[in-house]
Amino acid sequence: MRFVYFTDNLFFFNTPQPDMERKQRGIVPRKIKGFRDIDPGLNSIRWHIIRSASEVYKLYGFEHWDTPALEYAENLGKYLPDTDTVEEGVYSFKNPEAEPVLTADGRELRDEWDHVVMENHFLSLRYDLTAPLARLYAENLWHESLKGNLATSKAPLFRRYQYGPVYRFEAKLDPGRFREFWQLDFDTVGSGSPAVDAETCAILAASMEAIGMPKGSFLVKVNNRKVLKGFLATLGILDENREQSVLRIIDKFDKIGVEGIFGELVNGRTDESGAVIPGLGMDASTAKKITGLFGMFTALQSRPETIENIKKTCGHNDMLEEGLSELSEIDQTLRSLGFGEDLILFDPTLVRGMAYYTGPVFEVVSNLQYTDEKGRQRKVGSVCGGGRYDGLVERLLNVKIPATGASIGVDRLAELLSLTGWSAKSPHGPVIVVVFDENMMPAYNKIAAGLRNAGISAEIYYGMQRGLKKQLSYADKKNCPFAIFLGEDELAKGVVTVKNLRLGREITEIADKEEWKKKVQSEVGLENIVAYIRDNL
Amino acid sequence: MRFVYFTDNLFFFNTPQPDMERKQRGIVPRKIKGFRDIDPGLNSIRWHIIRSASEVYKLYGFEHWDTPALEYAENLGKYLPDTDTVEEGVYSFKNPEAEPVLTADGRELRDEWDHVVMENHFLSLRYDLTAPLARLYAENLWHESLKGNLATSKAPLFRRYQYGPVYRFEAKLDPGRFREFWQLDFDTVGSGSPAVDAETCAILAASMEAIGMPKGSFLVKVNNRKVLKGFLATLGILDENREQSVLRIIDKFDKIGVEGIFGELVNGRTDESGAVIPGLGMDASTAKKITGLFGMFTALQSRPETIENIKKTCGHNDMLEEGLSELSEIDQTLRSLGFGEDLILFDPTLVRGMAYYTGPVFEVVSNLQYTDEKGRQRKVGSVCGGGRYDGLVERLLNVKIPATGASIGVDRLAELLSLTGWSAKSPHGPVIVVVFDENMMPAYNKIAAGLRNAGISAEIYYGMQRGLKKQLSYADKKNCPFAIFLGEDELAKGVVTVKNLRLGREITEIADKEEWKKKVQSEVGLENIVAYIRDNL
Repeated sequence: MRFVYFTDNLFFFNTPQPDMERKQRGIVPRKIKGFRDIDPGLNSIRWHIIRSASEVYKLYGFEHWDTPALEYAENLGKYLPDTDTVEEGVYSFKNPEAEPVLTADGRELRDEWDHVVMENHFLSLRYDLTAPLARLYAENLWHESLKGNLATSKAPLFRRYQYGPVYRFEAKLDPGRFREFWQLDFDTVGSGSPAVDAETCAILAASMEAIGMPKGSFLVKVNNRKVLKGFLATLGILDENREQSVLRIIDKFDKIGVEGIFGELVNGRTDESGAVIPGLGMDASTAKKITGLFGMFTALQSRPETIENIKKTCGHNDMLEEGLSELSEIDQTLRSLGFGEDLILFDPTLVRGMAYYTGPVFEVVSNLQYTDEKGRQRKVGSVCGGGRYDGLVERLLNVKIPATGASIGVDRLAELLSLTGWSAKSPHGPVIVVVFDENMMPAYNKIAAGLRNAGISAEIYYGMQRGLKKQLSYADKKNCPFAIFLGEDELAKGVVTVKNLRLGREITEIADKEEWKKKVQSEVGLENIVAYIRDNL
Repeated sequence: MRFVYFTDNLFFFNTPQPDMERKQRGIVPRKIKGFRDIDPGLNSIRWHIIRSASEVYKLYGFEHWDTPALEYAENLGKYLPDTDTVEEGVYSFKNPEAEPVLTADGRELRDEWDHVVMENHFLSLRYDLTAPLARLYAENLWHESLKGNLATSKAPLFRRYQYGPVYRFEAKLDPGRFREFWQLDFDTVGSGSPAVDAETCAILAASMEAIGMPKGSFLVKVNNRKVLKGFLATLGILDENREQSVLRIIDKFDKIGVEGIFGELVNGRTDESGAVIPGLGMDASTAKKITGLFGMFTALQSRPETIENIKKTCGHNDMLEEGLSELSEIDQTLRSLGFGEDLILFDPTLVRGMAYYTGPVFEVVSNLQYTDEKGRQRKVGSVCGGGRYDGLVERLLNVKIPATGASIGVDRLAELLSLTGWSAKSPHGPVIVVVFDENMMPAYNKIAAGLRNAGISAEIYYGMQRGLKKQLSYADKKNCPFAIFLGEDELAKGVVTVKNLRLGREITEIADKEEWKKKVQSEVGLENIVAYIRDNL
């Protein structure tokens, strides 16, 4: 056992240290808080989701790209929702390598003595897959943009999908939330057309169906930030900070309800824990108009009806008009693609947290319920989100590049599927070859090799505890379908005993051991093993 | 454009900063040095490798697990090859969250005033998938081991495979080396049997074949550290540090050859760049015996012949005997599994860098050659490695747990496959629906939806530059097989024009434009589009 002693960013082993610590400080094998291991069952759901949805993305012409998990912090920027303090949200650290600081046009920055300014740049683990996409797109066009050859109207079209883990350092971890989780994104960069926003929603709906979520178990909700901003502007809320504060409160609807929203808009409220949340100090009549949004729209309305309702009740201005006209184009595109209100609805209260959204926003909510460990009925809520972010690439290129896309929360959806009793055709484990006799290993090897050559998964039991019970409990844990037994007597007869483990697990009501054995065990000729297993699998 | 200013582990936007820097410091969109983006072509090779080999792993009874990319640094330990200085090798940083320091039995460490000692623990990006496996296995058994219920003979059997990126901070990056790369591992924990080492080699060979490497294009090389250590002991090299130094030099054979090894063992040598590498100061006759290892064995020998040769020439001791007896069992198991010397050979000079290997070691080398950018013939060399590491879990559990496994270097192998001209059945892109007229979007949508419903990938061109040339060059870049054209006249006639883009790319020798058009373009009825595309795809 070695002891570890840390000093700054370097660490050393076997370094002398205070006696007390040397005696007491230990290495406990464990994961970092908020991180987790994924077992084969959860992995099979995770990859079922990724494969099914990726196929849909490909159907719409998206290509598979990957970017690193680590990026220069300044390239990613900081666009996390719900993080009021800067130290939350992102895992960042200094690059061990010192590198030149660059100017905006890519030259090395020099100090007054003409020395290159060196720095250990900050690196960040990606907190989503959208900011790295902006970097990827911008990196490929940066030289053109420096030369002045890039304009919004000339932005190349780029459609990619990508999946992988993202990292969030949330200081307070809610149950079921993790600091490493998987996303499955698709995005279209270089188009400002609402038709692409519509297509994005269609893809989300088609993906949910491909994954096995039945119609009616989920809804794609769509809104337009421009509608919300326009509406707030009619109420005199024009300042960007104030607008963001109001949107953040509206976004809490699922957690705090209409009354909570009203409280936070006006005089503040006291939450369940007794903590006082200060209010924005808005007058009650304005706040009433805002909370009025929540009563006005139901899932029974058609998309055009929702648009009409907003027009009637939310006042008038250019921003609002523009937002509604985009929603209208989204509705028409969805209709010609064949996606009706049973799958995709407008919800004028939808905010979506990400600060970088500039227009339409989307969300997939599941209404499936599950019973939590305390016996309460719970909804999983949002499993996908997305929206238009026309400003994200501009940050890196100084040219506005319209973009839109969405992300499936793979782990959230996997949890939903497993919690609500969805089960993939759970793949069986290998045929287990029981080890009776070390001297017969060559025969065991040949049996296993024969099965594998026929495409049947087979494992010779190599554990150190060779008791039959141990071997069979190992096989049960791995959901093995059959166990093969071969002793000297059997070898002499040219047969093996095949035990049907699946049947054995099912048939428990037969009291007579001999009868049970007869049902579950068969003698099979050595040359017929593959055929027998294949027929009974 | 925002400016970023860093201070320690937190970073702030829009913070005031010196005027010069504010004007000059820029955000340049780029990847961290040593990191890269993976395009659709490379991704398709990467996933071809992962899918093919995973299927083989499953055939042998391995299950799919995942662990986090980030772990407590002390849990991973530090087992990198070729890193003489501690600051190299691993990306580590302090957890933003302060947590209690734990004692070896898991209690919170308290100071002299009985306060819990808090620390921001060091976190590391995993540098391989083996150290996290040891943590996973140890974590699940740790409570049992504390209670004293764990013994080597009772170690549970655990067989898992895992793939994903790993991270190495190499200060000097050789060309073609990356700081983020993918590995595809399978391991058996809880068995000390050489039969499992043999199976590991068989799986490596079978995986290479499944990936599409023809027999003869690769070799699995096997050695046993015990043979090397035993041989060095017969030469009087018993000190562990000295032994490690000698092994490290032997491991450089591919780079420095026999003469280089001799030099580094004895008086040192001068390398190509003129740098002086000091020698170990060994006497020349001992060094000759060591370099003699390299002449003695050829790829034409059978595995038993190699064992006999070692017996004859390398002296005698228990360690050496044990190592040879294990190699002998590996040979016999391989033979009964049907893996001969055309796939798997013994090589007594094989070291493998990882410090944690304790017995048999494996490597897959490719003899495929490629021509590099300077026109030189190069071999890719090692694409997989592995070995037995009976001490790695012990570090965390204080109980010896035998384990063995191997890792496919996914990116290295992908590079090999693409460099040597291997090409996956490269998937075609979507059928592109050309946008002539904004007003006809509903018709375009219906055509695309019809194709997708038939499982054919289809994309409406949503780029902002609508010129026909732009649209077709976009389609060519994505390897689109067909383009569909629909204007008002055609809609009135109920037809579209389908252009066979693949054929168009192939047929370049026809000078007559009309003739070329006739070959490449067809008028197809709106109701027949799906059938036509499907028949011609």
